Amino acid sequence: MKHRIITISREFGSGGRTIGKEVARQLEIPCYDEEIINRIAKKSGLAEEYIKESGEYAASASKIGSLLAVKDFYGHSIQDELWGIQRRTILEIAREHSCVIVGRCADYIPKEKADLLKVFIHASIEKRAERIVKVYGENDVAPEKRLMQKDKKRRAYYQLYTDEKWGNIDNYHVSLDSGVLGIEKCIKIISSLY
Amino acid sequence: MKHRIITISREFGSGGRTIGKEVARQLEIPCYDEEIINRIAKKSGLAEEYIKESGEYAASASKIGSLLAVKDFYGHSIQDELWGIQRRTILEIAREHSCVIVGRCADYIPKEKADLLKVFIHASIEKRAERIVKVYGENDVAPEKRLMQKDKKRRAYYQLYTDEKWGNIDNYHVSLDSGVLGIEKCIKIISSLY
Repeated sequence: MKHRIITISREFGSGGRTIGKEVARQLEIPCYDEEIINRIAKKSGLAEEYIKESGEYAASASKIGSLLAVKDFYGHSIQDELWGIQRRTILEIAREHSCVIVGRCADYIPKEKADLLKVFIHASIEKRAERIVKVYGENDVAPEKRLMQKDKKRRAYYQLYTDEKWGNIDNYHVSLDSGVLGIEKCIKIISSLY
Repeated sequence: MKHRIITISREFGSGGRTIGKEVARQLEIPCYDEEIINRIAKKSGLAEEYIKESGEYAASASKIGSLLAVKDFYGHSIQDELWGIQRRTILEIAREHSCVIVGRCADYIPKEKADLLKVFIHASIEKRAERIVKVYGENDVAPEKRLMQKDKKRRAYYQLYTDEKWGNIDNYHVSLDSGVLGIEKCIKIISSLY
């Protein structure tokens, strides 16, 4: 029997993680977010901090970022290696039980492997900027700029490994504007579709 | 007081019109689809058949299509004229009462003019092909080809007059895959958000 998996892809600052956690709590199923990172760290020996960043975002233009993307003799980089481990970990979780998975390109699980409900959460730049200042606090970089950088890297990472366009409406079963509908309504809709 | 308007944009064959009509029925508010065409016909003197086609689809490459898109001395075509009348008619309806409007770029109503809930209905090519054969019957053109032609023209028309990208996830508050979720679930979600 295939397990029911809700995957939540989200624009940075849209509240997708909060929504995923609350949906999972209401449905009494696990929510994988940080937990995937722990599992991958155990398997790969890579640092959690690195996995958190590099399992979802394209390598930055920094020196370390460039090194991690360097290809070896066989054309593989550490980032490619991580993608493989992450993908296997997600498939392993999908075999174990029904759950919510936030981010990590989990919507790319083949539909033969799980009964998927693919969700995308987005919101306007203004609403997200407001939210990230509230949730993550102030930062040297203007919130709008932080958002755009994060989204750009998520988009690039997703496209690189899945060959699909991140945020393409056809890839999701439900897409919700959390800024207009509110977090509570989003949780309600997703839970009702489980 | 601003009226609550549900706009339903949809991929051809996704069942968006059926969903819009049923949402309106359940909420006991009017649904504008063919009714807008009647109003525009009365105002413009243009034939309903022409409005139906040209108020939502870019001019076809046929001879008549090209003539309708010909610009006069001031740079206006019949199609531009129709866009203006259609837009004014939609704003007029939005001033009158709460309602559902299917297609016709109604999601482009300025948010100062109405309390909008912008919905997009889509489905996979396979599901839509299956549906159009069932609803509209067989045709000389293969259903997949009919779909693509229709979507292409809707996309071009929308972009021409709104300067926005049709089917761009950020433009809608709720986007639903009617092929996966089913028509009934879509109706329920939209009604619950009214």
